[in-house]
Order: sequence, then C-alpha cells, then structure tokens
Amino acid sequence: MNVQEAIRTKRAIRHFTDQPLPDEVVATILHAGRLAQSSKNLQERMFIAIRDRATLEAVGKTGTWAGHLAGAALGVAILTPDPVTTFQTLFDAGQSAAYMQLAAWELGVGSCLASIYEEDQARAILGYPNDWYLRIALSFGYPTPESIAPRPPRPDGRKALDEVVRWDRWE
Amino acid sequence: MNVQEAIRTKRAIRHFTDQPLPDEVVATILHAGRLAQSSKNLQERMFIAIRDRATLEAVGKTGTWAGHLAGAALGVAILTPDPVTTFQTLFDAGQSAAYMQLAAWELGVGSCLASIYEEDQARAILGYPNDWYLRIALSFGYPTPESIAPRPPRPDGRKALDEVVRWDRWE
Repeated sequence: MNVQEAIRTKRAIRHFTDQPLPDEVVATILHAGRLAQSSKNLQERMFIAIRDRATLEAVGKTGTWAGHLAGAALGVAILTPDPVTTFQTLFDAGQSAAYMQLAAWELGVGSCLASIYEEDQARAILGYPNDWYLRIALSFGYPTPESIAPRPPRPDGRKALDEVVRWDRWE
Repeated sequence: MNVQEAIRTKRAIRHFTDQPLPDEVVATILHAGRLAQSSKNLQERMFIAIRDRATLEAVGKTGTWAGHLAGAALGVAILTPDPVTTFQTLFDAGQSAAYMQLAAWELGVGSCLASIYEEDQARAILGYPNDWYLRIALSFGYPTPESIAPRPPRPDGRKALDEVVRWDRWE
C-alpha cells in the first residue's frame, strides 16, 4: 500500500476482533511513532503500550468517547510534557499518532483516537509521574468485518479542497 | 513507496531546487492535509498555500528557524482556531502536517516544519482574521542533491524504542 492509498482509504475503526496483534506488528506501529518528527528533535514524548485487558478497560473510562479502548488489541497512550507551555508538544503528538495510524492501516490494522479528559484517573491507572501528561490515546486492532464494509460517501465526510485552502493570502 | 518505507526514509529537507512543483503534486499534498483526521470531524483548520516568492520570504521571517520557507516551491500555513482553549487543535494540525509530509515524500518532494513566533507579522502578511491562528507552517520543494545525499547515522537521531516505550504501566 502506498502512502496516498493509505491516506485515501483509512477510516476510523472503533470495533475490533479478538485477534491479537503479532509482536512484529506492534513493533512496527511503535517504531512509526518513534520515527515521527518532533520540534528541535527533542522527542519529548513517551508511549505506554497497553495490552492488559483490565488496563485497556480502565483507560477507556477516562474519556467521554474513549470506550473503544476496552476492545482494542493494543492501546497506545501518548504522554507529553506539559501541553500548555509549549505549543509544539501536542502538534508533535499529533504527528506521531498519524504515523502510527498510517503504518497500522498498511498492515490491515484499524485504529481510533480517544481524548482523555480524566487525567487524574489516567495517571493513577498508568502510573506516570506528575510532569507527564496524557491528552490522547489510541486503540489498535483488526477491524470487525462490519467496520470495514463498503459504505456510501457520508455527508459528514471531509470538506472539499476549496473549502479549506486559500491561495497566497486569506483573501 | 509504501507507508513504512516513507516513514523510515523521510528526513527534514530545508534546501530546495528552483524547480516548481506541478499543480497535481501541490493538489496531492493539500488533499493529504484535507483528509487527515480531526477531533469530532470538525475539521477546524484552514491551509494557506503559498507560492508567491515575496510572501514566502516574508513568512520565513516570522519564526526563528523559518528561513527555509524563503526557498520553498510551496509553503503551507496551517491555520487553526485558538490553540489554547482546545487541546485537540494543535494535535489535529500535527496530524495534517504528517499526512502532507508523507504524501510529499512519496512524490520525491521534501519538506520542513517551521514554528511561527511572530503571529502579528504573519497575520499582516497573510491577512487571516483575528479568530484564526498560525503556529506552524511547512516548506515543500524538490530537495537539493546535497540535502538527500547518503549520510552516516547521526548521534542526534531518534531514540531507541526501549527509551520511549513502556509496557502497560509507567513502571
């Protein structure tokens, strides 16, 4: 699968089969996150890779729409330094998430992002120190057949190019 | 080029030839940004695609290390709503940047990120309204031969996997 094809065909997958991910697939996903660029190459991020079912279920309760983590074969919590003081922090987390999700999709692995709103709970579950923060976690797993079935274009899909692009100047 | 290869081989390119990017290459890059995921599918981002040389040079002066924009065939300013109030804003910008950079790399186009620190200047140059913000812009162009020459692994490269990954819990 080439990059364009991965970008064009990828969709968010929230429902996963029970099939575990082989270790080499997990490694490929994590390496993709590791290889993503970061501001000044500081690489100020840590990944907690979660395969323990009880932990996945617990983290899935720390965000409003994070329940899909409970059924994932792998969860990845992207830890960052304080996301408020340096704007590159979450930008870089976003880059690493995109790399992981595209690398996974190429291997037939679906994924979904989850916003974490209950930081104290998440910190208690995952045991990370007070100077690390968790805003986004990802689910990974093999998609259920229904979740990758062909579907008609959705009215809530992506905006057209001329709605999101200006040329040289705002107007 | 498949996704893994793009992720593994991509490097930041700051020096570009004078060769312009064909319109279809520019379109592919912008479509990649458009297709990136966004929180709740709100797609709250706008791209200003810059090919005007004077504008590229001016924007290149709005960040400390943004000078590479001056020599780019294409600049893309990622505009977002207020990046402070919603943490997903810059995370989503990071995802769209990653998509654009990987799609470009597959087409032989190099790119580099620039942090924008002089927002007032950038707003005056690009003319975007006060409720839009610019934190990151990207340069795109065909790499100079020197900038893609083989090189030995650098000591300041990416951290090893076991330095950035924990399993199930911080410790």
